[in-house]
Amino acid sequence: MRKLYVIGIGAGDPDQVTMQAVKALREVDVFFVMGKGTEKQQLVDVRTAILDEHAGRPYRIVEIPDPPRDRTPADYNATVLDWHERRSMLLEEAFAGTEGVGAILVWGDPALYDSTLRMVEQVLARGTLAFDYTVIPGVTSVHALAARHRIVLHRIGEPVHITTGRRLRAEGLGGGSTVVMLDADCAFTSVPGDTYIWWGAYLGMPDETLFHGRAGEIGAEIVRRRAELRARKGWIMDIYLLRPAE
Amino acid sequence: MRKLYVIGIGAGDPDQVTMQAVKALREVDVFFVMGKGTEKQQLVDVRTAILDEHAGRPYRIVEIPDPPRDRTPADYNATVLDWHERRSMLLEEAFAGTEGVGAILVWGDPALYDSTLRMVEQVLARGTLAFDYTVIPGVTSVHALAARHRIVLHRIGEPVHITTGRRLRAEGLGGGSTVVMLDADCAFTSVPGDTYIWWGAYLGMPDETLFHGRAGEIGAEIVRRRAELRARKGWIMDIYLLRPAE
Repeated sequence: MRKLYVIGIGAGDPDQVTMQAVKALREVDVFFVMGKGTEKQQLVDVRTAILDEHAGRPYRIVEIPDPPRDRTPADYNATVLDWHERRSMLLEEAFAGTEGVGAILVWGDPALYDSTLRMVEQVLARGTLAFDYTVIPGVTSVHALAARHRIVLHRIGEPVHITTGRRLRAEGLGGGSTVVMLDADCAFTSVPGDTYIWWGAYLGMPDETLFHGRAGEIGAEIVRRRAELRARKGWIMDIYLLRPAE
Repeated sequence: MRKLYVIGIGAGDPDQVTMQAVKALREVDVFFVMGKGTEKQQLVDVRTAILDEHAGRPYRIVEIPDPPRDRTPADYNATVLDWHERRSMLLEEAFAGTEGVGAILVWGDPALYDSTLRMVEQVLARGTLAFDYTVIPGVTSVHALAARHRIVLHRIGEPVHITTGRRLRAEGLGGGSTVVMLDADCAFTSVPGDTYIWWGAYLGMPDETLFHGRAGEIGAEIVRRRAELRARKGWIMDIYLLRPAE
């Protein structure tokens, strides 16, 4: 039975890889890299650093291009599902065309806002290829953000909500602590001004940038700085925690 | 300036420690261990395995006993705050009585349902001891659970809610995906029977036990098995994800 690893490699610092991931990397013959064409150079560098340091036997890298995707679809879920299906067919083709132990490296952790596991399940569901797969959990940007700000995500005994920028805009801020990911649009400008925000971009990377304070006081500064960083580097990855005033 | 590390060491598998944590461990002269008296042998074994494999220079372990705590307090928050304060004084005393780089190892990640960072901030706020501290993020049991079940925590584009058993009972289940931690009381028996549950105990340890299915179909079996495991081992650590039927 062929073996496939889906490995969480952490949030952007090559040293955020776990020993469990390192041991898996050493077994791998072929790494499938999804969507490299659109991936940012710094992320490619982090992954290259991880492979250079930890991969064991001689390995191949097989790039799987991202199929085109409607970024402003009428039916968001149907469009995403269709895109996953097309990606899963490309993955199946690549896996079938290679030999030995395979692996897909995932930023952060495969269980949070990542579609790799859905793709792998789609490949298995088609039943053409038989293989066993193992998921190696990783450190997420949620925890990287909290660590750099040296904070606990919630007040004592309270919950944590993890959501997207799209949903924050649509649903507003709840009563507890909310982590926002996948926000291209500074949805934190829509919350009450006395909300506390802890923001971070390029966590664990050389350009790491952190801000914290009241949204009403530093929100505009984050918007300005974010636009400046994005223009200078051509891309940005950011995340933030919001907590309503007590 | 003295240095203190707060290091997330993962959810129970010694190999879930990150390279970043390993590098920090190698710098440490003294490890402060909180509440060892009540800690379970298997957890002590995992920590010992991590130190045996990764600690660098000769190190000391200083045990800090847990002050007594009212487990059924009238005012939950005030009682917890008072308990943190007393623990932080014991930590301060231990840190002042030692030399070199210090570290506190935290199960999972320091940002989720852990009071170490609040204690460290209390020590700093008293202003008697000056030191710098760094937080190293870890893999949480949330992601260990998802990895073992090979699932994504949420449906496409949906949020994830992380809460406690106490709150699940008090507030009921929301519409999305909910991870429940710190539940000594099987609060999953209070959700609608067609809710899907992914449950795990002793994740990453030799007694790891997993269940998944509809709460109404397997809930009683989890309650029975959980009681049996707990009786046999004298303790249990479990976590689960709930998702309402579509």
